[in-house]
Amino acid sequence: MNTADLGLPVDVPSTALFTDQYELTMLQAALKAGTAERRSVFEVFTRRLPEGRRYGVVAGTGRVLDAVENFRFDEGQLGFLREQRIVDEETLAWLADYRFTGDIWGYPEGEVYFPGSPILRVEGSFAECVLLETVMLSILNHDSAIAAAASRMASAAGERPLIEMGARRTHELAAVAAARAAYVGGFATTSDLAAGFRYGIPTVGTSAHAFTLLHDHERDAFRAQVDTLGPGTTLLVDTYDVAEAVRTAVEVAGPELGAVRIDSGDLLLVAHRVRQQLDELGATETRIVVTSDLDEYAIASLAAAPVDAYGVGTQLVTGSGHPTASMVYKLVARAETADPGAPLVSVAKKSSGGKASVGGRKWAARRLDADGVAEAEVVGTGAVPAQLADRQLLVRLVEAGRVVAREPLDVARERHIAARANLPLSATQLSRGEPVLPTEYVHERSGS
Amino acid sequence: MNTADLGLPVDVPSTALFTDQYELTMLQAALKAGTAERRSVFEVFTRRLPEGRRYGVVAGTGRVLDAVENFRFDEGQLGFLREQRIVDEETLAWLADYRFTGDIWGYPEGEVYFPGSPILRVEGSFAECVLLETVMLSILNHDSAIAAAASRMASAAGERPLIEMGARRTHELAAVAAARAAYVGGFATTSDLAAGFRYGIPTVGTSAHAFTLLHDHERDAFRAQVDTLGPGTTLLVDTYDVAEAVRTAVEVAGPELGAVRIDSGDLLLVAHRVRQQLDELGATETRIVVTSDLDEYAIASLAAAPVDAYGVGTQLVTGSGHPTASMVYKLVARAETADPGAPLVSVAKKSSGGKASVGGRKWAARRLDADGVAEAEVVGTGAVPAQLADRQLLVRLVEAGRVVAREPLDVARERHIAARANLPLSATQLSRGEPVLPTEYVHERSGS
Repeated sequence: MNTADLGLPVDVPSTALFTDQYELTMLQAALKAGTAERRSVFEVFTRRLPEGRRYGVVAGTGRVLDAVENFRFDEGQLGFLREQRIVDEETLAWLADYRFTGDIWGYPEGEVYFPGSPILRVEGSFAECVLLETVMLSILNHDSAIAAAASRMASAAGERPLIEMGARRTHELAAVAAARAAYVGGFATTSDLAAGFRYGIPTVGTSAHAFTLLHDHERDAFRAQVDTLGPGTTLLVDTYDVAEAVRTAVEVAGPELGAVRIDSGDLLLVAHRVRQQLDELGATETRIVVTSDLDEYAIASLAAAPVDAYGVGTQLVTGSGHPTASMVYKLVARAETADPGAPLVSVAKKSSGGKASVGGRKWAARRLDADGVAEAEVVGTGAVPAQLADRQLLVRLVEAGRVVAREPLDVARERHIAARANLPLSATQLSRGEPVLPTEYVHERSGS
Repeated sequence: MNTADLGLPVDVPSTALFTDQYELTMLQAALKAGTAERRSVFEVFTRRLPEGRRYGVVAGTGRVLDAVENFRFDEGQLGFLREQRIVDEETLAWLADYRFTGDIWGYPEGEVYFPGSPILRVEGSFAECVLLETVMLSILNHDSAIAAAASRMASAAGERPLIEMGARRTHELAAVAAARAAYVGGFATTSDLAAGFRYGIPTVGTSAHAFTLLHDHERDAFRAQVDTLGPGTTLLVDTYDVAEAVRTAVEVAGPELGAVRIDSGDLLLVAHRVRQQLDELGATETRIVVTSDLDEYAIASLAAAPVDAYGVGTQLVTGSGHPTASMVYKLVARAETADPGAPLVSVAKKSSGGKASVGGRKWAARRLDADGVAEAEVVGTGAVPAQLADRQLLVRLVEAGRVVAREPLDVARERHIAARANLPLSATQLSRGEPVLPTEYVHERSGS
């Protein structure tokens, strides 16, 4: 895929420098030692969910595929590595030809995950796989953290739409990825134009307090907005006095006013008053949008309030207290020689301070109970038990360097809804608790 | 400045779509109403510091200047806005010619700030200023949050260098900005190659556990690394047994081994044991680097341990509990007509739910006590009192659309060290408390 086709507001000529220096120094040392070509398996997983969370949400997979395709070193980048003496000439020559030629399997985007779930499995030579660690983790850790928060908010909001409006609270490009992850997690729209441009996510927005303050009277501002955006627009009613603003809004736009937005104050109380006032003014179809520092708990607390839509900013883009997903990328198996046919042996860091890993190339499946509800995340090495064969979670994403699993973002969004619906009911309770599924390990009987 | 000169790993053809849709719909409504050209003053400030923090750190100013210069709409972007019917043709025509032509004043990068500090003041027509809100806040909120965490970590670390290594824990481009902000806040180096490429920040890195696991024996891995990176390299000693690894490391590299890295376990205990072992082996100059889930408190707790450098990842790039700085961009004054000579009137949202603003175009100064230590952040409208004239904080950043305050990143870094040193001693205590300086408001006597 040509990068130009990505339609990025920011063109990405290469993702190769989104990489920690040690990936390159390890490459150099392995090239010298003759171990760089050993066939290797790396896996992405997390040792734990954020405290109290019941499930994780895989997001960013599509972006990972873009990053892998665009991971190549151009002249400017190689020149930088040379000038800074980060690696030697032999390594630079190797990097100049770099293209990932291996295989990648993974949980499809939108799927849920649990501690130990092998969210991504990257297979190829040590050299070609190790380079991808940093950028893959950047994408998955960020996007999955946002999607998990979005999913909880979407559960809490029920049928009411959620608007992503956190661009101003996070890095300008993280914001675009956050809008994408929020959409996967269940948000309906975004305020971020770059997210609309890049990913086709529906964009929304009408006006801020500054627009009211620009005008001599609130009425002038409302009139100006309705004149050009039509009576179906959303008027912001809390710059001065809410009751007066609602009266003015309906006078200016008529009872066909689309919506009013409340951005401060006790939203529960104010929403009830505004609904009553709108109804008394005959604006019974006018919706109420609330947007003040919401998180999943605030959304849930407004479930019985006459609110029609929620706008969420800060808490969405910061993962509602958990801005990163703590996924790691670990070597779990590798060959003993550079021979392409050499068998793989499991490897793992030994337990010390809680950072031990489970070695071996893994499969994963979600076991269902008699009612068809998920009851365990089963992770294993070796052959997949027959009764789990059709419940496997990993799909092929890249085959011999070629991306084979592109899909529209809506597919991931629908997949998430289905995956969450298949979890035990307690998955969507907001209170802190344990992961809603236990992770069970099934180890290969013998052999390696 | 040509965008090509920015040397970005990611070229930024335009920052114009890093914008919330409502900035554009407000523009359209204001153009129609004849209010778009009213001279306006917007200010960036925060109503509060993150809970318990003593001071904030301004970071991202240099990136804001890049964003302003590159804020223009190209054909692809205008086509998107047209297709999606986000704004009308008149507005599109106006956007096609957009260049910011106003003035920007601000706290220079690296300076400290407090609640109410006017960190940035943007002056021009309403239309040209309102468009910049989203991208300016994205940059300042993200970068300042990271720099504040970095500053606390740097205080805790004292003379020992800090390595930024959080790229994998945040969005791949947020990571580059985070490395930059960390450098402003006092970090010495970064693992992120893109940050080295883009901003010239020194990069470091040697090897991960995967490199040890790739080899048949730990000794082979150490040998491979030392063979190509030299004995001055840093060997990772906690893949299996630390004591055995340290012994092997010194055998392989000799007593001139540069450093060992410990990435798990009880760092305090392990550092002491490793130091003793290294000394006994004659490797008295070999340094100890620790890198396991550190934050400012963990760094402080290691002050008396034989540690020579700290690597910080997750907690740095997530702002150590506060990943965003809650800055807002508010209209504080505007003219009553579109006449360029029309006087400004103060405007402000009325108090409701704690989101009130202080109107008026503001200056700021830091008042010193008799010993030359800062004692108050003074923010006012109107004339600056004579005794504060030479303690003013805002500097001119953009003059009639032209950036006039570019500076090397090291200048901001040095400025931060000086600004923090000028605060009362309690600024650097890590425990929760109030802002170390009070903010005092001085209002214009009369007139507007």
